[in-house]
Amino acid sequence: MRIFRTRDRVAFGDTDASGILHFAAPLRYLEVGEREAMRTLGVRVGDFRRGGYELPRVRLTCEYHHPLYYDDEIEVLTRCERIGRSSINWRFEIYRGSVVCVTAEMTVVLVDSVTRRPLPIPDEWRAHLLGEH
Amino acid sequence: MRIFRTRDRVAFGDTDASGILHFAAPLRYLEVGEREAMRTLGVRVGDFRRGGYELPRVRLTCEYHHPLYYDDEIEVLTRCERIGRSSINWRFEIYRGSVVCVTAEMTVVLVDSVTRRPLPIPDEWRAHLLGEH
Amino acid sequence: MRIFRTRDRVAFGDTDASGILHFAAPLRYLEVGEREAMRTLGVRVGDFRRGGYELPRVRLTCEYHHPLYYDDEIEVLTRCERIGRSSINWRFEIYRGSVVCVTAEMTVVLVDSVTRRPLPIPDEWRAHLLGEH
Amino acid sequence: MRIFRTRDRVAFGDTDASGILHFAAPLRYLEVGEREAMRTLGVRVGDFRRGGYELPRVRLTCEYHHPLYYDDEIEVLTRCERIGRSSINWRFEIYRGSVVCVTAEMTVVLVDSVTRRPLPIPDEWRAHLLGEH
Repeated sequence: MRIFRTRDRVAFGDTDASGILHFAAPLRYLEVGEREAMRTLGVRVGDFRRGGYELPRVRLTCEYHHPLYYDDEIEVLTRCERIGRSSINWRFEIYRGSVVCVTAEMTVVLVDSVTRRPLPIPDEWRAHLLGEH
Repeated sequence: MRIFRTRDRVAFGDTDASGILHFAAPLRYLEVGEREAMRTLGVRVGDFRRGGYELPRVRLTCEYHHPLYYDDEIEVLTRCERIGRSSINWRFEIYRGSVVCVTAEMTVVLVDSVTRRPLPIPDEWRAHLLGEH
Repeated sequence: MRIFRTRDRVAFGDTDASGILHFAAPLRYLEVGEREAMRTLGVRVGDFRRGGYELPRVRLTCEYHHPLYYDDEIEVLTRCERIGRSSINWRFEIYRGSVVCVTAEMTVVLVDSVTRRPLPIPDEWRAHLLGEH
Repeated sequence: MRIFRTRDRVAFGDTDASGILHFAAPLRYLEVGEREAMRTLGVRVGDFRRGGYELPRVRLTCEYHHPLYYDDEIEVLTRCERIGRSSINWRFEIYRGSVVCVTAEMTVVLVDSVTRRPLPIPDEWRAHLLGEH
């Protein structure tokens, strides 16, 4: 299983008045993790009018283990756990140093942008994302 | 079990370039649902420096059943499914008309704002939110 | 000059770790003000694929006079200050009670969704928004 | 006058259903530009409870010259145009390649986090940000 790594810092607008990262903000980091994992495959996620694949989200689970604060340096580990006929299961871990602060799972489905019907995941995606040979 | 209802419209900034509600945007609607459910109890969630209770989120699950579009009128049904010693399990359904577009569950924990230690949920919260007598 | 009024409460996700409304958050409230002003005209702003008019923003000025806090009740006063051949100048005031906390001006241009060329503002918009007879 | 450069890509959540960057999204990029400019001075902006300086925004002007699209690589040029007794005037340019898509100006004021009173800008900030010797 391949691990894809992205880095960022908690932006000020991602915090809330409790002084920590707002619970919706990690979703942005997950989406960047997915985008960069797919980019290593030469595939663009999102905005099909500009050549991206449509991978609507069908399920998200997020666990908040430790708070993240403004300006914290984070590393997002993205891995593909399973690929079904038309679906991809992603697993994310957001670290500050060695502390895992947020974990998440996201299921997306590959669809035809016009008909919205599920499409089979190409074999090369499977091989690349799962690190199979 | 009591049901709390809130209404809104999908804001333009909550959509994305795939033309539908961005997957992070419903979290705002859930948070408003929780806020208004708690308000019926005379309790304010968030920003303890201004008298609110701190109820950090520990777990979120979101399922996206049907896309929501800009300007769609939505109704959020919020109910409390279970109250543990220090935790509350919320269940949300986001409707457009009679179609349930997003369902979600969120677990929050009542903590002391200074020590961050879990606090017991007051009995009156339990009675009110679960609709027990 | 007509005044259009919309009401909301500051959402938790709109605050930041300084404890107040984040400086980007009022833009959402302005956009709702514009949307509801245009709705009184029977016109939908945004998402032309679903029948809305495209009114891209070309200029925004925002002045932050007083901080807004989580859960504050706000009222947004929206008025159209001037209509050019293809452009509309909006003026916004965001109040908490009798205190004006944010004022803003926004210039938008009516464009053809396909060619992106400016289109003349219809006369009925002018009459309605400026309150002329 | 010193120029500070930051780079990013347009995130999917920053776009809207018109297919382009939402008009509120560049504010995030400005804030990162300011943060990184201040970091070169050894100063942290935001969240005074964690050692940051409070620099509330008092005025923002944003001009949208060309649309930005999902996944566009952007470079933000940040420079300090003027420093008053307690205020800093920033000027930002957001480029995609050689095209300037958004320009902005932002005035912030240095305040005491407790009294909220304006504080004099330290001389070393002035020298560093304006590039004076």
